[in-house]
Amino acid sequence: MSFEVLARDGAARRGNLRTAHGSVQTPVFMPCGTYGTVKAMTPADLLSVGTQMLLGNTFHLMLRPGSERIQALGGLHEFMQWPDPILTDSGGFQVWSLGELRKIDEQGVVFRSPINGDRVTLTPERSIEVQLQLGSDVIMVFDECTAYPASESEVRDSMELSLRWAQRSKRVHEPSQGPSLLFGIVQGGMFEPLRAESASQLVSLGFDGYAIGGLSVGEPKQEMQRVMQATVPMLPEDKPRYLMGVGTPEDLVAGVAAGVDMFDCVLPTRNGRNGYAFTSRGTVKIRNAQHRDADEPLDPECQCYTCQGFSRAYLHHLDRCGEMLASMLMTRHNLHYYHALMARLRASIETGTFPSLIETLHNGWNSLK
Amino acid sequence: MSFEVLARDGAARRGNLRTAHGSVQTPVFMPCGTYGTVKAMTPADLLSVGTQMLLGNTFHLMLRPGSERIQALGGLHEFMQWPDPILTDSGGFQVWSLGELRKIDEQGVVFRSPINGDRVTLTPERSIEVQLQLGSDVIMVFDECTAYPASESEVRDSMELSLRWAQRSKRVHEPSQGPSLLFGIVQGGMFEPLRAESASQLVSLGFDGYAIGGLSVGEPKQEMQRVMQATVPMLPEDKPRYLMGVGTPEDLVAGVAAGVDMFDCVLPTRNGRNGYAFTSRGTVKIRNAQHRDADEPLDPECQCYTCQGFSRAYLHHLDRCGEMLASMLMTRHNLHYYHALMARLRASIETGTFPSLIETLHNGWNSLK
Repeated sequence: MSFEVLARDGAARRGNLRTAHGSVQTPVFMPCGTYGTVKAMTPADLLSVGTQMLLGNTFHLMLRPGSERIQALGGLHEFMQWPDPILTDSGGFQVWSLGELRKIDEQGVVFRSPINGDRVTLTPERSIEVQLQLGSDVIMVFDECTAYPASESEVRDSMELSLRWAQRSKRVHEPSQGPSLLFGIVQGGMFEPLRAESASQLVSLGFDGYAIGGLSVGEPKQEMQRVMQATVPMLPEDKPRYLMGVGTPEDLVAGVAAGVDMFDCVLPTRNGRNGYAFTSRGTVKIRNAQHRDADEPLDPECQCYTCQGFSRAYLHHLDRCGEMLASMLMTRHNLHYYHALMARLRASIETGTFPSLIETLHNGWNSLK
Repeated sequence: MSFEVLARDGAARRGNLRTAHGSVQTPVFMPCGTYGTVKAMTPADLLSVGTQMLLGNTFHLMLRPGSERIQALGGLHEFMQWPDPILTDSGGFQVWSLGELRKIDEQGVVFRSPINGDRVTLTPERSIEVQLQLGSDVIMVFDECTAYPASESEVRDSMELSLRWAQRSKRVHEPSQGPSLLFGIVQGGMFEPLRAESASQLVSLGFDGYAIGGLSVGEPKQEMQRVMQATVPMLPEDKPRYLMGVGTPEDLVAGVAAGVDMFDCVLPTRNGRNGYAFTSRGTVKIRNAQHRDADEPLDPECQCYTCQGFSRAYLHHLDRCGEMLASMLMTRHNLHYYHALMARLRASIETGTFPSLIETLHNGWNSLK
């Protein structure tokens, strides 16, 4: 068994996910390493902030530098010098984000490369092949991300297409005989009966884990919460559950409370580069003039490299000057904050203090509002 | 005495410079920390590559975030979290680089801030005041950088103005009673008699160290070498000698051979960000297609973080994608290379093997040509 639930507090789970590159303590947050680098962080920096596992983007890496090239250079772990587990997405979401530049049919997707305009085809078979070439520890099935908003019949068609693609993905993955795990992705838009149908069919096919896809695509936050909370109980108790592309610290806490085990999101890294810090007292926009003379750290409760020495005034100055060090220090803080948050959630599930921790966290986040 | 020569090999010197923030082993290379950050490097990264002392830019810091603000926040060391010595330039060179945007008279320089268009005045008195506010360990006199090319009478006028400014700089620095050292700057363009006059007058005034300014301003490399080699012997044996704004690894070796103790230059950091690596076998342009599949480090002889794990193929990929990590890893390598080079030069002077080391270094640099 690659996954084990070690403790529970309500619906929240404390687990252990075993992969070919070591074990991951869940619930876990995975930073995004789009082009084979988590932006502004070295692998040593990532280890120092507590990153256990990261996400690589199939879509980006197949275009640049190409998965065959990465395979020839020893795989993605070796290429980017990341020793620990890697999950790769399937490229479905990125292709979907291209909008008018892509054409979808039963076979797969044809699109124009945003890098050089080349015509590129992505099918379930090709996506799995690419992920195997990258040497991913957790491979995602190729799916269609359903548009929002969409009618029930549009969502049904899309969800059923994703199911057929999931089956084809599994058919290609199985003979690989490698150590990688394969996760299915539940679709079904904002319609709970369609989510249930998607989940039940995926479970019949049988995967090593189950993701909730098609959220954080423009729907209101309450919709996201409703669908997430309705979908998690449709997933097997004994398999890891992964909420894709989510989210803020509040979203992570809500996800863990509902029973989610894995998360990824660009927020801590992208927002860090744009001058936003997540802290125990809410979000700090470092560009604001109020920080110009502030001789205090981003977060007095934080133990990260950034908060152990650098003032808000210094970070404000670096940000104003467009200095790379601003992105480096802000990203480092945000990832440390996310990982430390997950570590506290894990510990609280073990000790049965999860509900009181949630209250403490929300009080902190609201203290500046 | 703040400076001591510990060993000699020919004209080359191995020395020790004592400052308020610790001792510096010379010959030393100082990276440029223009806006209170050596671009793409944390202070911890700088310590790990062997940086002993860095340079801060008075011109940039007085405009952003302002020297009064930095003083209020505890000084430049505290502001940027750099525990070791800092040398600040006087702003003279940067003001000179503004070209048409500045007006020079006996009193000083008036210029338009390139940040916000404000009218700013910089005089010897103001420059020293700013450097004292920053808390610099080594303060440079305010000078006029002479244009190149220029007639002998133009150069004389400029050199004499710099001498009067040096005197005024000293007059402001003396009462500060602080631990900072004050260095004079020899000018005189490409005319050796004017260099001699400048040096002799500065020595009469008396400074803690002497810099050679007005080089690397567009003159041919042989001119630079000629003037540098002619000027060094005009400087006192018992004081540190600093060649400003120079240069390539070859330039550093030539400078040390002539008896220079201190160097600064943007080359290793700026070229690193632009994809050029200095190596034991010459310069590597990582953007070149030949590195696309190269499963080898930048420099097989290098012990830096970058060369201990990352392939040229990976660095090439990061550079092509415009990833910040490319700048971070290339800068780290280049600074490590510069500092390791200086450490080898220091050791060879101690053991009397400086000439044979120079030969070894040049053979390596030429091996790829």
